[in-house]
Amino acid sequence: MKLTVQQVIDGLMQPGGAAVQTVDALKFGDPHAQVTGIVTAFLPTRQVLERAVGLGANLVIVHEGAFYTHHDSGPPIDDPVAAAKLEWIEQSGLAIFRIHDHIHHRHRPDGIMEGLVQALDWDAYIDEHRDAYSLFNLPETTLGELAQTVKARLGIPYVRVIGSPDMRCRKVGALVGYRGGAATAIPVLGREGADVVLYGEGPEWETPEYVRDANAYGIAKGAIVLGHAESESPGMRLLAERLGERYPGLPVHYAGERPLFQVM
Amino acid sequence: MKLTVQQVIDGLMQPGGAAVQTVDALKFGDPHAQVTGIVTAFLPTRQVLERAVGLGANLVIVHEGAFYTHHDSGPPIDDPVAAAKLEWIEQSGLAIFRIHDHIHHRHRPDGIMEGLVQALDWDAYIDEHRDAYSLFNLPETTLGELAQTVKARLGIPYVRVIGSPDMRCRKVGALVGYRGGAATAIPVLGREGADVVLYGEGPEWETPEYVRDANAYGIAKGAIVLGHAESESPGMRLLAERLGERYPGLPVHYAGERPLFQVM
Repeated sequence: MKLTVQQVIDGLMQPGGAAVQTVDALKFGDPHAQVTGIVTAFLPTRQVLERAVGLGANLVIVHEGAFYTHHDSGPPIDDPVAAAKLEWIEQSGLAIFRIHDHIHHRHRPDGIMEGLVQALDWDAYIDEHRDAYSLFNLPETTLGELAQTVKARLGIPYVRVIGSPDMRCRKVGALVGYRGGAATAIPVLGREGADVVLYGEGPEWETPEYVRDANAYGIAKGAIVLGHAESESPGMRLLAERLGERYPGLPVHYAGERPLFQVM
Repeated sequence: MKLTVQQVIDGLMQPGGAAVQTVDALKFGDPHAQVTGIVTAFLPTRQVLERAVGLGANLVIVHEGAFYTHHDSGPPIDDPVAAAKLEWIEQSGLAIFRIHDHIHHRHRPDGIMEGLVQALDWDAYIDEHRDAYSLFNLPETTLGELAQTVKARLGIPYVRVIGSPDMRCRKVGALVGYRGGAATAIPVLGREGADVVLYGEGPEWETPEYVRDANAYGIAKGAIVLGHAESESPGMRLLAERLGERYPGLPVHYAGERPLFQVM
């Protein structure tokens, strides 16, 4: 199968086409190169890029950028790590395409959320998909049990929890990535009435302090903080599955990473 | 000693006066009320406010706001937790003053950083105080030992660490609060050449992924993520000490909080 990097990108940008203002772009590599294989990942770490090279894949599709800022405003200036990474990537010849806005906003439901739902095996419990979150009606459980289930199904070593582990819960709201902040997650608990929110990342003085206050004022609420990568990686794994179905002749792999933090 | 809330605020706003655009303000209470006692804290949680009431203090001085946003844009709309908290605060009659920008920017060094340095007992190792960070030359240690020392001295149950625990380190940069992002923390590791950064909070795909990459490209770096409250609470404890010295006749206390997260 003869397929160029640009043809894969054009396929990815269906449905809906790219947004006008977007971070989604081919960051490195030749759009006319023939694709030998695809690796998807949360972020183009060294291990991910080496894995692609080792697998003979020359197109890496990632959700976050290579240089540590959401807007990909370029490598940090006068920085030895960025310089080494830039040189390594350019010498590798890898094409790196970032798909962030399209997979979140052009897919209905959000393609990253779909991956999380699949990984949690919660498809049967979906109540509603909204733009920035999804609501689930789970069989009644406790916050502590829910945290253990989530850890096991996502294969992550720890989660950070606010609320009583014994709290009964049924209605859960999930938010991927950096949607754990006050503007996105508090209305899920407050106006939507979810018992628990499950999210990737968000400012600590926002939703976590809200949940602490809720319990102090006699309103039982809980939050489970997964980690940013932990909440979005399943979406990139699902993307690899779908690309594998779309291009049956082409090797397509998902490359996971080790946990970012060690808890000490 | 007869002292009004406004007189304490005027004293706090020395030196330099309040910034023109600032979140620092009397959020609740009567500026003309006579102060019966002061409690300082990181954030006005229910437990902090109850402690003030229990101590007979009617002025609470906090670093972060009551309603889960940096800009104190008001309580979340139609929210039962915010409504309960608002009613409780108004019935308590407590005055709540927020000091955020002044203590960070009008004090030299940053008054919150000073508290962290004191809590870490690193005064002898200060290399330089800069606007957004401070540099320390520590006796050589390892990243793992450093993490244990920091935990013990700050009295916190866990830290999140990136980098090899065996990495030797000497030059450390510290950043309080939400200064752990790429724009503030990466130059400390890169251009300033710190071995390790120690910070409160910051986006996970920024500094942590930089540190992971650094080690992958053969440049030994480390990061210790304290938690936002954990990095800034010592500054509010130091403020209580200073207010106690300024007003010897007045009861002044610092109210700590339990850790926000349970790691499961």
